[in-house]
Amino acid sequence: MLSRFTDSINEKQLFEPHQKVLLAVSGGIDSMVLLNLFEKSGLNYGVVHCNFQLRGEDSDKDEQFVREAVLQHGVPAFFQTFETEEHARLNGVSIEMAARELRYEYFEEIRIKNQYDFIATAHHQDDLLETFFLNLSRKTGIRGLTGIKEKSGNLIRPLLFASRREIEDFARANFIEFREDYTNSEVVYQRNFIRHKILPLFQKMNPAFKKNLLASMEHLKETEEVYSFSMNRWQKNVVSTIDGNIEIQISALLNLPFPKILLYEILIRYNFNPKVTGQVFQSIENESGKQFYSPTHRLVKDREKLFVIELPKEEKRIYYIEKDDIELFEPFDLAIEKNENRNFEISRNPNVACLDFDQLDFPLLIRRWKQGDYFQPLGMSGFKKLSDFFIDEKLPLHEKENTWLLCSGQQIVWVMGHRIDNRFKITPQTRQVLKIEIREY
Amino acid sequence: MLSRFTDSINEKQLFEPHQKVLLAVSGGIDSMVLLNLFEKSGLNYGVVHCNFQLRGEDSDKDEQFVREAVLQHGVPAFFQTFETEEHARLNGVSIEMAARELRYEYFEEIRIKNQYDFIATAHHQDDLLETFFLNLSRKTGIRGLTGIKEKSGNLIRPLLFASRREIEDFARANFIEFREDYTNSEVVYQRNFIRHKILPLFQKMNPAFKKNLLASMEHLKETEEVYSFSMNRWQKNVVSTIDGNIEIQISALLNLPFPKILLYEILIRYNFNPKVTGQVFQSIENESGKQFYSPTHRLVKDREKLFVIELPKEEKRIYYIEKDDIELFEPFDLAIEKNENRNFEISRNPNVACLDFDQLDFPLLIRRWKQGDYFQPLGMSGFKKLSDFFIDEKLPLHEKENTWLLCSGQQIVWVMGHRIDNRFKITPQTRQVLKIEIREY
Repeated sequence: MLSRFTDSINEKQLFEPHQKVLLAVSGGIDSMVLLNLFEKSGLNYGVVHCNFQLRGEDSDKDEQFVREAVLQHGVPAFFQTFETEEHARLNGVSIEMAARELRYEYFEEIRIKNQYDFIATAHHQDDLLETFFLNLSRKTGIRGLTGIKEKSGNLIRPLLFASRREIEDFARANFIEFREDYTNSEVVYQRNFIRHKILPLFQKMNPAFKKNLLASMEHLKETEEVYSFSMNRWQKNVVSTIDGNIEIQISALLNLPFPKILLYEILIRYNFNPKVTGQVFQSIENESGKQFYSPTHRLVKDREKLFVIELPKEEKRIYYIEKDDIELFEPFDLAIEKNENRNFEISRNPNVACLDFDQLDFPLLIRRWKQGDYFQPLGMSGFKKLSDFFIDEKLPLHEKENTWLLCSGQQIVWVMGHRIDNRFKITPQTRQVLKIEIREY
Repeated sequence: MLSRFTDSINEKQLFEPHQKVLLAVSGGIDSMVLLNLFEKSGLNYGVVHCNFQLRGEDSDKDEQFVREAVLQHGVPAFFQTFETEEHARLNGVSIEMAARELRYEYFEEIRIKNQYDFIATAHHQDDLLETFFLNLSRKTGIRGLTGIKEKSGNLIRPLLFASRREIEDFARANFIEFREDYTNSEVVYQRNFIRHKILPLFQKMNPAFKKNLLASMEHLKETEEVYSFSMNRWQKNVVSTIDGNIEIQISALLNLPFPKILLYEILIRYNFNPKVTGQVFQSIENESGKQFYSPTHRLVKDREKLFVIELPKEEKRIYYIEKDDIELFEPFDLAIEKNENRNFEISRNPNVACLDFDQLDFPLLIRRWKQGDYFQPLGMSGFKKLSDFFIDEKLPLHEKENTWLLCSGQQIVWVMGHRIDNRFKITPQTRQVLKIEIREY
């Protein structure tokens, strides 16, 4: 294992012997094995640990465990505690997204301050396989199926040559201590499901499965590189940045071989979802002045150009629910189902909205509320400003700030987690019910 | 279902109402539903059925069943019986490959003779999903993961809009009779395994799984189109055909952005496997005069060019076994395993070869025997011509003609299914044993 580790570093040219590497160590088995391999190889390294405070006392024990381990090795170590849930709330992102943002921002800060050349994480082969299937179970493109790279920018993954089994064997043989990770998020649940239920079945069907899949992922990676290369080259012919705004030349775009795919690749950078990009493309040859929104940008269709303009901060982050979506992961976990209005039981849970499907105009939008928003609260005949509604409901400031709205066109459908709009409620005339449940705000 | 069927034909522009379509009807549920939908829609169609004689009496009953069905509808129908096993033997391909070759060749012949515009097969959505996983469990590239197209050339798949469940429901509701397919090949076994064991697990993990995967496959299809477009354009800069031979300009190739991937895409058309292409690429800048083989072509490396020359018929079809392969599907089903030579029991089965791993030079080759071949049969100290060996063994002509050899460089290792070579046998000095078993010749 040790020689395969150093061979792999040389072969993949991850870093030079004189370079300094900052190891991301959680205290789990993978990162403790990584630490041990760096120590045994006499490499120049330091350790960084993030305490995300997501598992109460366990998080603190993890930190303490890593502190003791690095003390033994006598290497530089950096520790940081984060208010992860708070960060997630304030930025309207999932807990996982928040932890990821905080982690990599902090890693990079420590790396630069302390002159490390690379940051190393302990991802291994089975992580690759599990991520492949995790992405496959959601909608994904080729980039979700190519796995992570051994080296990208300042980030390296020196354990990608090893399987989980090999890491476990090495830990056992070398008496490496580690902390069990009891995190119980949806992603961890799905990863475990893939690891323990799905992968063994594939192995049973074909013993060469893992090896074949890793080889296939390598092929896909090559294909992705060719694809991205072509896309980038074509983009240069149609996109220009003027005064910080992006301009896309419509005629130049339409003269290229894959205009729709290219437009998709251009607009995804500004967070436009594929459905909206499809609508932009449909209108590209006729109407002018039409506007389209992403969570962060507005697109205006002019006669000869598409202009992409960044939204002011308070307007940012818009998400879409399509007619046939059955779940949404961003900005938070939603389950969506369509039911016949026959013996349908309306939920009283404020985290569940039961809406008249035929009154809704798809795609629905999820956005932050802003001053001036108003709606017709369920059971009322008149309209009410949201700011007044919040006062009447005695909402604490941070909850008020972080409230999301579900909208159908310009109309508010649901002040999410609080009250639906009277215009979209279930009536005896309702044929179909759209039921939306907040699984995790 | 009927309206979705006609909508889908229009939306995907599969064919025009006045065009004639030839339906491939096996008698199974999918093709009988396809037939019913064509009949109910009043479309202009005929039927073609192949009897591959692979399931004895059942094959004949299938044919009879289809004959009776078309008689009811009073449409033109074409029937053909094939000696599939014979064809597979003579051409050194698997039974499945043989059936596929025969089928599409015959379809095309009937189509042209009888002036049909398209051939339609009854593939549906679940076929797509199963094929995705079937290919995933082998080594595959993006083309193995993009599914089949609704329309490619003269071939259309008008049932791709429907799931298996929908087809079954439609068959039941409309009292459509069909024949069960009891084929029991490895591929059918794996398809059933995917259908009944693996897909339900994914569905359990994420109820939107099927829908998401189909959407992902659409994305991959687009990526594949961009990739192939770029590859084809670059190929034109480096490949020329002179006197039926292919010439690749080395310097032009190396000046392009992805020379190795491009070379792989060029050579795969001439059946060079990726490993051999890798060797070609490695030698591209130094040695001249080196030769490389595919089952159908020879590549000669010159100073400025690579020449690709078609092999004379009797030399064709060479297959490779790599050091870490554990199975092979072409030219027939092989299981390969490496064992320590400790309590290893040597098999006496002529379809199993137990070989001294360290004596072998990888990749091993599988090729047809030719006049002049000789080897040292197990237990003999001298060499023997293969033609003499066959006479001594009293091999019937067709078996002799169809014998394959396993070779290590120029040396014959195993006259497959008959005798191994004495030089590669297990001895007390053998450390590792390579065991190769013919699962199906």
